[in-house]
Amino acid sequence: MSVSSQDIPTAAISRLVIYLRILEALEAAEISRTSSSDLAERAQVTAFQVRKDLAYFGRFGTRGMGYTVPLLKRELMRVLGLNRTWNVVIMGMGRLGQAVANYPGASDYQFGYVGLFDIDPELVGREIRGLKVQHADELKGFVQTRPVDLGFLAVPPEHAQAAAQTLVSAGIRGILNFAPTMIQPRLIPGSSEVESEWKAVSVENVDFLAGMKRLAFYTLNPHLRPSELKPSELSSTELEA
Amino acid sequence: MSVSSQDIPTAAISRLVIYLRILEALEAAEISRTSSSDLAERAQVTAFQVRKDLAYFGRFGTRGMGYTVPLLKRELMRVLGLNRTWNVVIMGMGRLGQAVANYPGASDYQFGYVGLFDIDPELVGREIRGLKVQHADELKGFVQTRPVDLGFLAVPPEHAQAAAQTLVSAGIRGILNFAPTMIQPRLIPGSSEVESEWKAVSVENVDFLAGMKRLAFYTLNPHLRPSELKPSELSSTELEA
Repeated sequence: MSVSSQDIPTAAISRLVIYLRILEALEAAEISRTSSSDLAERAQVTAFQVRKDLAYFGRFGTRGMGYTVPLLKRELMRVLGLNRTWNVVIMGMGRLGQAVANYPGASDYQFGYVGLFDIDPELVGREIRGLKVQHADELKGFVQTRPVDLGFLAVPPEHAQAAAQTLVSAGIRGILNFAPTMIQPRLIPGSSEVESEWKAVSVENVDFLAGMKRLAFYTLNPHLRPSELKPSELSSTELEA
Repeated sequence: MSVSSQDIPTAAISRLVIYLRILEALEAAEISRTSSSDLAERAQVTAFQVRKDLAYFGRFGTRGMGYTVPLLKRELMRVLGLNRTWNVVIMGMGRLGQAVANYPGASDYQFGYVGLFDIDPELVGREIRGLKVQHADELKGFVQTRPVDLGFLAVPPEHAQAAAQTLVSAGIRGILNFAPTMIQPRLIPGSSEVESEWKAVSVENVDFLAGMKRLAFYTLNPHLRPSELKPSELSSTELEA
């Protein structure tokens, strides 16, 4: 991967994820070519932005010819690290954790659940998707027996920070937080030992509430929604990269 | 609200939601004043961006004095429409719908569930959070007996588009889509009647997978993460608005 340590804005990574989703939709619609202006229109950004975002990671198109959809899709998957398997544990196996475990789509990207954990005696020992729920105390030992890449956090908000600490202390370096509270390394109080443990940790928050809030705004202000493309425009592609 | 029909980028609305979350964290930490540069640093944007985003909706600060945290929080809640109640129905009461219904935090913003719907005979009739799950066929009649503002979609992806159509046909104008597929008015095939029905509809997608993909990237490329603020910086506030 041609990524150097230059400063790539987090918003560019979020946009790569959106471009990938658009490419998947184009592929499903059997549209084989696209362009920066086509991607831009669908993603509601400028064509310059698309070209700039992609340029962080290499040259993918041909000037005047646009992009080949399956090729650009494969390249973005490689850039994002979605061409490999990810071993995931879920911490918190109540309704939210069970919804996460059963969420269709995760397996499309080879996110595979290898361990489920909780502290509730009602849940520990139960079998969910072929895995026996283990006590959170067993996580550290579990991680020593097999590689675990990511931890998905699905505990109640008041336990989120402590559960995140359990994941990090066990050596897990990527956390997807579903709890309605922010897990932020910067908010971890305390010892410099804990701080350095968190240095290599990436946290993403899946924020149900952010979607609700944006929806409230646009439902009150439908005239402020960005103008939608007409269905007929879906098949149009312009061929400049 | 001082919102005109000028073009406000959707990204600005997403940032308002982030500023609101930061203000809530500041309030919880009993920090009573902030500034555009303080908000900018916490939100990882520029101070100019913060001032521009807020300026769409009015003048909230005092030059050289910054913002009063509870006041700006209240103003943003008003702008976003979070100072009123929202009557919500959930379509799809499997694990995902149950997780949504039980997700703590929604009630903080007066999103109240008034009806639960599914088509599965195993689920219809069951009581969840004090509400009896009704058959999706009953939605249209239900909406005529009481005001429903929003529909949360928690069905399997292959049923998402049809279920969204059921919500829209019943007269619901805001959809929060939890299914791992895009619901887009622009992707609705068909008749001009259906198209005009969707004209006033706002859709927000809560994308679990987008978080997973960003997490994959940053876990592989921890050196590309934006630099985090140190915990000690959390209490610093600069007083220029």
